[in-house]
Amino acid sequence: MYPSKLIEDAVNEVSKLPGIGKKTALRLVLHLVKEHESKTRLLADALVNLRTHIRFCTICYNISDEETCVICRSGRREREYLCVVEESKDVMAIENTSQYNGIYHVLGGVISPMNGVGPSELKMEALMARIQNCGGEIKEVILALSPTMEGDTTSFYIHRRLKDFPIKVTTIARGVPVGGDLEYADEISLGRSITGRTLFN
Amino acid sequence: MYPSKLIEDAVNEVSKLPGIGKKTALRLVLHLVKEHESKTRLLADALVNLRTHIRFCTICYNISDEETCVICRSGRREREYLCVVEESKDVMAIENTSQYNGIYHVLGGVISPMNGVGPSELKMEALMARIQNCGGEIKEVILALSPTMEGDTTSFYIHRRLKDFPIKVTTIARGVPVGGDLEYADEISLGRSITGRTLFN
Repeated sequence: MYPSKLIEDAVNEVSKLPGIGKKTALRLVLHLVKEHESKTRLLADALVNLRTHIRFCTICYNISDEETCVICRSGRREREYLCVVEESKDVMAIENTSQYNGIYHVLGGVISPMNGVGPSELKMEALMARIQNCGGEIKEVILALSPTMEGDTTSFYIHRRLKDFPIKVTTIARGVPVGGDLEYADEISLGRSITGRTLFN
Repeated sequence: MYPSKLIEDAVNEVSKLPGIGKKTALRLVLHLVKEHESKTRLLADALVNLRTHIRFCTICYNISDEETCVICRSGRREREYLCVVEESKDVMAIENTSQYNGIYHVLGGVISPMNGVGPSELKMEALMARIQNCGGEIKEVILALSPTMEGDTTSFYIHRRLKDFPIKVTTIARGVPVGGDLEYADEISLGRSITGRTLFN
């Protein structure tokens, strides 16, 4: 099917990436063949460099260049708010909204017995230790996990573990997306938007 | 915007690939971060290996693992038919149809004065030399270039250069795609399907 084993190997590796099929992989690979060799080298180096030297913040486990991340190091974040997320990309997404100025904790996933992920596979004890050792600084834990069964299980688990702390546990609002037409909203989101309705202001 | 310079560099390099934006690049890069380091290394090695060791057939300029490609080496191809294409991927596309059993010539592009591509930037003289030195073996040159102004210009150029040879010059049929509804065909394709109509058989 491919004119060269080298092409085949490259296509196989590239098509292992999520959302990239054989056809797209071939297009990308043939693009690299047309470009100067240095471009492929830059790409490969950037990827290997990233994967080899990537570090995680020792406080919140977000991706970081230094021992602690920019957010944990910052003197301008409100440390009474701790937002619990699954992945670094969720931190990026929330940061992009400019609506949150607290700190984060990246769990590294959610509890999923089906996939063999229990609390010990996540940064759960680290979260508890952070809360225990904060000296009452953290007043609210905001759970920003996926609206899936696994996410809800994880939220419930954290909520239960925190019940003896004088800490408010909240979860991000679920509802109809802004700009979305009610007609096209899924029933669960629409349902939650009704049960979780807020005062019109 | 990114929590780490390493992520930023990797996203920048990945998003240089055609059809990959910053958001997709970030998704791919974060996927690599989650996976084992060896996976990134395999990917990077496959790309660098491809780009460093890729060879082109010294006869038809198709991508090849050896000095000459599988098609040029084959004893079962009809050498009276020479199909002229732009890129190796066009050879793959035509091979996948199983409708052609001749040989190929990969130009490496089309004549495009706007982009500074003249015949000398392409494997044009090599094509002429092949035809001149074939001892009359090649009876038909099939032009399978893009239906764009550049492609048509290139076809016309080759046609003119071949006018003194006892060779039939043909071009692949343009028309309405098989399975396509006439209503949705673009006017140029539909127009060409009428002017280029064939006997019903």
